Amino acid sequence: MTPAPHHHEYVIRVGYADTDQMGFVHHSRYLVYFESARTELLRTTGTSYRQWEERGVLLPLTGCSVDFIKAGRYDDVLAIRTRLESCSRLRVSFRYEVVQQESATLLATGATHHVFMTPDGKPTRAPADLLGLLAPFIPPTSSSQ
Amino acid sequence: MTPAPHHHEYVIRVGYADTDQMGFVHHSRYLVYFESARTELLRTTGTSYRQWEERGVLLPLTGCSVDFIKAGRYDDVLAIRTRLESCSRLRVSFRYEVVQQESATLLATGATHHVFMTPDGKPTRAPADLLGLLAPFIPPTSSSQ
Amino acid sequence: MTPAPHHHEYVIRVGYADTDQMGFVHHSRYLVYFESARTELLRTTGTSYRQWEERGVLLPLTGCSVDFIKAGRYDDVLAIRTRLESCSRLRVSFRYEVVQQESATLLATGATHHVFMTPDGKPTRAPADLLGLLAPFIPPTSSSQ
Amino acid sequence: MTPAPHHHEYVIRVGYADTDQMGFVHHSRYLVYFESARTELLRTTGTSYRQWEERGVLLPLTGCSVDFIKAGRYDDVLAIRTRLESCSRLRVSFRYEVVQQESATLLATGATHHVFMTPDGKPTRAPADLLGLLAPFIPPTSSSQ
Repeated sequence: MTPAPHHHEYVIRVGYADTDQMGFVHHSRYLVYFESARTELLRTTGTSYRQWEERGVLLPLTGCSVDFIKAGRYDDVLAIRTRLESCSRLRVSFRYEVVQQESATLLATGATHHVFMTPDGKPTRAPADLLGLLAPFIPPTSSSQ
Repeated sequence: MTPAPHHHEYVIRVGYADTDQMGFVHHSRYLVYFESARTELLRTTGTSYRQWEERGVLLPLTGCSVDFIKAGRYDDVLAIRTRLESCSRLRVSFRYEVVQQESATLLATGATHHVFMTPDGKPTRAPADLLGLLAPFIPPTSSSQ
Repeated sequence: MTPAPHHHEYVIRVGYADTDQMGFVHHSRYLVYFESARTELLRTTGTSYRQWEERGVLLPLTGCSVDFIKAGRYDDVLAIRTRLESCSRLRVSFRYEVVQQESATLLATGATHHVFMTPDGKPTRAPADLLGLLAPFIPPTSSSQ
Repeated sequence: MTPAPHHHEYVIRVGYADTDQMGFVHHSRYLVYFESARTELLRTTGTSYRQWEERGVLLPLTGCSVDFIKAGRYDDVLAIRTRLESCSRLRVSFRYEVVQQESATLLATGATHHVFMTPDGKPTRAPADLLGLLAPFIPPTSSSQ
């Protein structure tokens, strides 16, 4: 029996445009890295966020937070480790860790919180089949953080 | 008789997120400054680009160019001078100059070229009343560049 | 006796590049709005963050959070209300409210947390004169949140 | 004898933050794609732009242009094909093609022009060894565009 893939890893390289004159990755870019990482997590379920939107299920943020531990720098290769923190028919939360690969240093951690929404901006319930695809990423209750 | 306002000036301040680790304004940001500048030019006509879009008239770019003369820096106050270079019912071009205000130094010049488009992505003719509002910004033929 | 100006208001207009295909202001842009807003707060003290950096005092983030209440949209005029939440010689925190001006609707709230740092990346103590300039923005203890 | 690799291909996926409310990739993002693409071209020479900067050789832009042929969209997989258009000890130019992979559609073409610069902002000559690494990408004169 294979264990459930409770987290997903997405690797990116820091671009020049991501830096600021302090020589660091600008803090706002971490939210964009998180976005790409959860997009790739969703893709591994056999669907994609693009398809979710085409079915009329949007996932806007209701909140986010980032803790910055050590600065990222230009050309760093970063692994974004993403996992579902919680998921119901109305809302879903993801947690992220950003690791500088070469040094295995944790640069940042963060979370994003989302609701399911219709294209005209109303809260909605996620279709059961889409939620089912997320099940492998939902952590056992005991390990929820 | 007052001369027609052939150009429009929009002032912005360079933000930290606009810089890169070279200590300069990242070159891609000039296109965003141009965008804000032509939005404000359109607003002075008594309409706004938001209203254009609500009427189903979009203005996507077909081309752009920027010449970088001197680097912009964090916290610089920049004047973006915008004028219509040409305008027909099908397409419109703007030209821009970016001046660092404190030193009156020209940092960059550029151009953007646009077509009128419907919301479903088809080329269209601009409504006559909207084009009429742009007339004061259309340069006399002799001065066209 | 005039009351201390416990908060600062900075007004921006949402640009096209700030939006995403959901038609909303992309969530990462709020961190950039916050950055511009605290830059302007610092400027009202008679110094500027550019001058802080020139003196070798940098203010990188150690954390941030945003709560999204209602979506911002293209061309919205937003008031960013910023105040110092806490301040010591080692660290400083700001809180923000983002209000859509036309409708007086609260779109988002947030916080950023910073340490004082030297240009070579070491924690440092803020010079007393710079901290003194922030005093008018430091809330009375009883109102600290 | 293997032909010289006159161009380099870099593949990226369009992120949500790259889109605007028109549902297209924001035009300014193409410059960021170009930047990542030429960074990866340089890496294939056995050096990297990060190392160039560490040796004091910077490559700021003196100009750029983009022609937009068809809109890119969220989640598109794009191939950025980059080649050196010209190269001397003082300056270098790159040309780019952006192809939507699934449909093999050309979305955009562009160019960036650069000078070699010292960290304190003075024009400089590129070290011969660095230029030598670029040689395989320099097109034969007859094919220069």
